[in-house]
Amino acid sequence: MRILVVGGTGTIGAAVVQALTGSDTEVISVSRSSEPAVDITDTTSISAMYEAVGTVDAIVSTTGAAPFVATSEATPEQFAAGFADKLGGQINLTLLGLPHLRDGGSITLITGILAQHPVKNSVIAGTVNGGIEAFAVSAATDLPRGIRINVVSPNVIEEALPSYGSAFPGFHPVPAAQAAQAFVRSVHGVETGQVFRVWR
Amino acid sequence: MRILVVGGTGTIGAAVVQALTGSDTEVISVSRSSEPAVDITDTTSISAMYEAVGTVDAIVSTTGAAPFVATSEATPEQFAAGFADKLGGQINLTLLGLPHLRDGGSITLITGILAQHPVKNSVIAGTVNGGIEAFAVSAATDLPRGIRINVVSPNVIEEALPSYGSAFPGFHPVPAAQAAQAFVRSVHGVETGQVFRVWR
Ligand SMILES: NC(=O)c1ccc[n+]([C@@H]2O[C@H](COP(=O)([O-])OP(=O)(O)OC[C@H]3O[C@@H](n4cnc5c(N)ncnc54)[C@H](OP(=O)(O)O)[C@@H]3O)[C@@H](O)[C@H]2O)c1
Ligand SMILES: NC(=O)c1ccc[n+]([C@@H]2O[C@H](COP(=O)([O-])OP(=O)(O)OC[C@H]3O[C@@H](n4cnc5c(N)ncnc54)[C@H](OP(=O)(O)O)[C@@H]3O)[C@@H](O)[C@H]2O)c1
Repeated sequence: MRILVVGGTGTIGAAVVQALTGSDTEVISVSRSSEPAVDITDTTSISAMYEAVGTVDAIVSTTGAAPFVATSEATPEQFAAGFADKLGGQINLTLLGLPHLRDGGSITLITGILAQHPVKNSVIAGTVNGGIEAFAVSAATDLPRGIRINVVSPNVIEEALPSYGSAFPGFHPVPAAQAAQAFVRSVHGVETGQVFRVWR
Repeated sequence: MRILVVGGTGTIGAAVVQALTGSDTEVISVSRSSEPAVDITDTTSISAMYEAVGTVDAIVSTTGAAPFVATSEATPEQFAAGFADKLGGQINLTLLGLPHLRDGGSITLITGILAQHPVKNSVIAGTVNGGIEAFAVSAATDLPRGIRINVVSPNVIEEALPSYGSAFPGFHPVPAAQAAQAFVRSVHGVETGQVFRVWR
């Protein structure tokens, strides 16, 4: 089995790569600084990366950014940046990846608890997360060749607390390894059109 | 009270204008073909419209389009068009409208049942609807000056059955006048951050 992880060097991605790697499973981790490289905000870069990687059994995304800003200070350009990055970037990974996925393969995207439970300045992140979750629900109904699609929505990650912890007062952090198991479930399970919430 | 309805000449918008109009309520309906005109995909046009209309107590949107296409045939450009129109257009109506809203005013956006229940080729509409609903949930937590924001999500509209009916097999259509009451509830009620589902 060959699994592509986009963003596999990140806090969550590294745990996902570790959880998916096995004796019969090759995991290919790509990001802006890998070889081949990929920038999810650039469709030419996505297509070139897929050409270089070849056919895979699963596409996993653990990447995507959105600006943090208060609603009353947010600009149309900042929302457009979120649409082009975490939202459109993951959707384009899906659209352009389909021809490179084996029959019965799977796609797993990432959102986060901010879709339902905002924190200060998270309005753009919440918006794009909501879009991604609805995308997977819809796409699951018409993906060809038995291809499945799911989303993993983690709570704030324990390993990220030094950077983000103060922005998530009272949220119960989950270890990256626990979030990674939801990706394992999506890739090796049978479900489709699901949002796996890793909240506790 | 002054209420702005963007898209007030449409199937849903006309019923919303009728339901909101009262002896002490002026309803201003705008669209691409009104005077002043507005195109929600163009921020310059949105700003000019708000300058012309002046201060209002409520901003209501009953507009926004997204391409219909199967996931496996959708292009990044078609998703970007949906992001710029129904999703970004309504968000930009919100962002640019805030300075023109009275203290304690309200914003009401529109989505539709496709966010949760897809039909054939509705993946882009579902995605943008999901983004709008999450936007309102987040924005409700930090809008200034007591401004509220809600979303109305109608089922397929009875009056639209001649155009769309065959795409919604078994869906229970709602009259536009019933969907309009959810806008009345949002504008004249006290709730914020809610998605009023007009499904039956
Ligand atoms: N950390 C949390 O607590 C948390 C909780 C819930 C959800 N999430 C979401 O999970 C996702 C990953 O979060 P994380 O904390 O693991 O992020 P991270 O540690 O910053 O890692 C991001 C990963 O994505 C790659 N990357 C960044 N921009 C990219 C681009 N434009 N194209 C391709 N690859 C790119 C990075 O590598 P390069 O820099 O080499 O490109 C890296 O591998 C984000 O969408 C985040 O919102 C995070
Ligand atoms: N009809 C349904 O069954 C149904 C059900 C659920 C949700 N919805 C959603 O409700 C919304 C309205 O649907 P509808 O059926 O009432 O639409 P509609 O009859 O086509 O009316 C659209 C309205 O928006 C205006 N408009 C169109 N594009 C615009 C733009 N770029 N900028 C500003 N105004 C614009 C139109 O006037 P001009 O052409 O003059 O600009 C018109 O007033 C849509 O987002 C739709 O997805 C519809």
